[in-house]
Amino acid sequence: MKFLVIGGDAAGMSAASRAKRNIPNLDIVVFEKTLDVSYSACGMPYNLQDPTRKMDDLIVRAAKVFEEKQGIKVMLNHEVISINPNSHEIIVKSPTQEYREEYDKLLIATGASPIIPDIPGIKNNGIFTLKSLEDGRKIKNYIISNNVKSALIIGMGYIALEMCEAFRALDIKVTMIKPRPKLIPWMNEQLSTVIKKELEDHNVELVFGQELKSVEKTNDSLIAHFDTLDIKTDLILFAIGITPNSQLAKDAGLELGPKGSISVNRQMQTSDPDIYAAGDCADSYHVVTGNKVWIPLALRANRGGYAVADHIAGKYVYMHGVTGTAVFKVFDLEVARTGLSLNEAKEAGFDPQEEVIESRSRAHAHPGSSTIYCQMVGDKRSGKLLGCQMVGKEGCAHRINAVSVALHKGMLVEEYAQCDLAYAPPFGPVWDPTLVAANQLLRKL
Amino acid sequence: MKFLVIGGDAAGMSAASRAKRNIPNLDIVVFEKTLDVSYSACGMPYNLQDPTRKMDDLIVRAAKVFEEKQGIKVMLNHEVISINPNSHEIIVKSPTQEYREEYDKLLIATGASPIIPDIPGIKNNGIFTLKSLEDGRKIKNYIISNNVKSALIIGMGYIALEMCEAFRALDIKVTMIKPRPKLIPWMNEQLSTVIKKELEDHNVELVFGQELKSVEKTNDSLIAHFDTLDIKTDLILFAIGITPNSQLAKDAGLELGPKGSISVNRQMQTSDPDIYAAGDCADSYHVVTGNKVWIPLALRANRGGYAVADHIAGKYVYMHGVTGTAVFKVFDLEVARTGLSLNEAKEAGFDPQEEVIESRSRAHAHPGSSTIYCQMVGDKRSGKLLGCQMVGKEGCAHRINAVSVALHKGMLVEEYAQCDLAYAPPFGPVWDPTLVAANQLLRKL
Repeated sequence: MKFLVIGGDAAGMSAASRAKRNIPNLDIVVFEKTLDVSYSACGMPYNLQDPTRKMDDLIVRAAKVFEEKQGIKVMLNHEVISINPNSHEIIVKSPTQEYREEYDKLLIATGASPIIPDIPGIKNNGIFTLKSLEDGRKIKNYIISNNVKSALIIGMGYIALEMCEAFRALDIKVTMIKPRPKLIPWMNEQLSTVIKKELEDHNVELVFGQELKSVEKTNDSLIAHFDTLDIKTDLILFAIGITPNSQLAKDAGLELGPKGSISVNRQMQTSDPDIYAAGDCADSYHVVTGNKVWIPLALRANRGGYAVADHIAGKYVYMHGVTGTAVFKVFDLEVARTGLSLNEAKEAGFDPQEEVIESRSRAHAHPGSSTIYCQMVGDKRSGKLLGCQMVGKEGCAHRINAVSVALHKGMLVEEYAQCDLAYAPPFGPVWDPTLVAANQLLRKL
Repeated sequence: MKFLVIGGDAAGMSAASRAKRNIPNLDIVVFEKTLDVSYSACGMPYNLQDPTRKMDDLIVRAAKVFEEKQGIKVMLNHEVISINPNSHEIIVKSPTQEYREEYDKLLIATGASPIIPDIPGIKNNGIFTLKSLEDGRKIKNYIISNNVKSALIIGMGYIALEMCEAFRALDIKVTMIKPRPKLIPWMNEQLSTVIKKELEDHNVELVFGQELKSVEKTNDSLIAHFDTLDIKTDLILFAIGITPNSQLAKDAGLELGPKGSISVNRQMQTSDPDIYAAGDCADSYHVVTGNKVWIPLALRANRGGYAVADHIAGKYVYMHGVTGTAVFKVFDLEVARTGLSLNEAKEAGFDPQEEVIESRSRAHAHPGSSTIYCQMVGDKRSGKLLGCQMVGKEGCAHRINAVSVALHKGMLVEEYAQCDLAYAPPFGPVWDPTLVAANQLLRKL
């Protein structure tokens, strides 16, 4: 059996490795259009802020290792340009030629690409996105070789927020700017205000309501022209979101899901049962709503890759869906979420109620305690727990997991409020912040 | 209606406060045999190690405040010496007299007492237990006024381990000793070895297989005589466990539960429906086994107190039971558990399988990462998740909560393995350590 994989990052390489373990004589070829496979993309903002580390430290396993140790053929600099589901063939563009390759099973793990607006001057030197390892290398080199002293971040999502910290650690002046009025649209306002203050405390300038119109290159810098504002800067980072790389799938006539992602079933199969999709290009089911969603995150990519490998090997596979659990660091803050925000819950047809509480990261009278803000959303009709958001200096990143597990089992707020959670003075108050939130929310349901 | 409460710590004062909020004209009297109510007992080992803080900093709310702000009568130095369920009366011993008091509803929240063996010399000065705030004050004063340089801890449970850290922080030489051969009997050996090393790295001397036979007082110190060993020390701390204070209940003919605790139903009622019990003296249901257990911990005490207050007020109450989630700090280690150990699972009639994995507290290539050891137990017959234990320098205390929630909903190991848990490089690997453990365990089920 021949198994072809398009894309050599998390989903693709997880699938290839596991498939080889499942079926040792399987003929596997991975086509990767860049020169890198299997690296920890999420580590780039942290690597960037440390000049002593090479970006390549983030490589988990080199292509050569996959070939030599696992017998997985990895074709770097090879782009797949079309798929023919009927003839079970793909067309590959190598640096020297185009050629056909047949498959029995195919995995599309093409990931996602940063969104870049088509505006004048966008191709100027000094304008970046951060998605691939090569992006990371370029930014790191550019900062050093151009002695970057100021950066302009367009957008305020995860990547934008993580990159603030990286730039500030390098003593680079940072301005973050976006057209819309909210820092993090899905976040409860009270929690979002805490993050805003943290950014301001670290001298990040925040500008709302300005859309980038063009970029101009001068001798020694870039000038970004907005609606009513011009900003001179050494570097511009676009972090306004990503979009699934689904063109190949679309051209092959495969069914698409939310936001143009590739639609897959519980076995990670696309609308063609011999073609799988996994990773940032594929959709998934949301466990709270039961609806299809596109939430591209690393764990799902790895898990999806494994599921594909198992299904190919004839094992039982049923992917349970996602709760959209995410965590990120903003300077000294841990920011975490799972499930639905109030608005997402409304849009999904629930009758949601939210509650925000302030609690502590350690017990009464224990030194080093800081404030934890916890928002919880429940459904007034069913009493079900729908989502949770948390912000604090410590104790948020892992606490969110308890709520995620609750969502996976469709827990009621009342049931969560009765959970037996850990307590010791160095780690929290007697009542875990999520329990306080659940108890308070319960009174409003 | 008259509501009497015996015992003014977590369960008693939670019940009294909430009952007063529920029924503002309720006549409440709390009888407390010591001079302290409502303090954070679990904070004592941490308070002890800081000479700049007073032990009384751990008082959450003084008796006076309960009286003045909430209208709850708190009788300090008043011991309840008997209960007559038939006549709905208790007999109270005050410093000056014995008297009767009638009740409509009664709560027994008498807590638990440290076990002290009846051996020669046990009453000598310099021998302590740590349960009440007064215990804490005495130890703190004794350390200062006697310039304590060495301490002997009898037992190796939570309190013993937390007190190691307190003593070492004060530069007191510590020896921990117990008759049996295992550091923490319920803990997986591999995890327990990590804790042992942590103790040794902090110069705590561990001695196994020695039972204390007598204590001798010399001019300037104590000599503890063991089976085949004599140890000279400035201070002895007994931390060999606690026993529920259920004599009052037993004498009143109330039904007892495991380990002599007071048996209560899902509404916290004892075998007499007008008498409730809550806190360290009461039993509970274990959510994994469905059996009665006695696991005296702070959260349950507070929750039980609230439940009593709600039930008295005619509200719907159904206590869901405990998973036995606990966490404690041993120097730089976080130690956490929930659910059943392998042996507990065997004893409960499961066909258990355990798995121990090593994972990391942060992502590949992220600085500051340390090892997390995670043990997980599942049932071979049902596929159910039964328990989890974790040890590591960071990221264990709150991670355990996710597994506890899973136990509350009777999750299968397979379901847990599919949970969407948080990932960002500063907070963990892509696959949360508990997911790695679940995936590995799954192969053995």
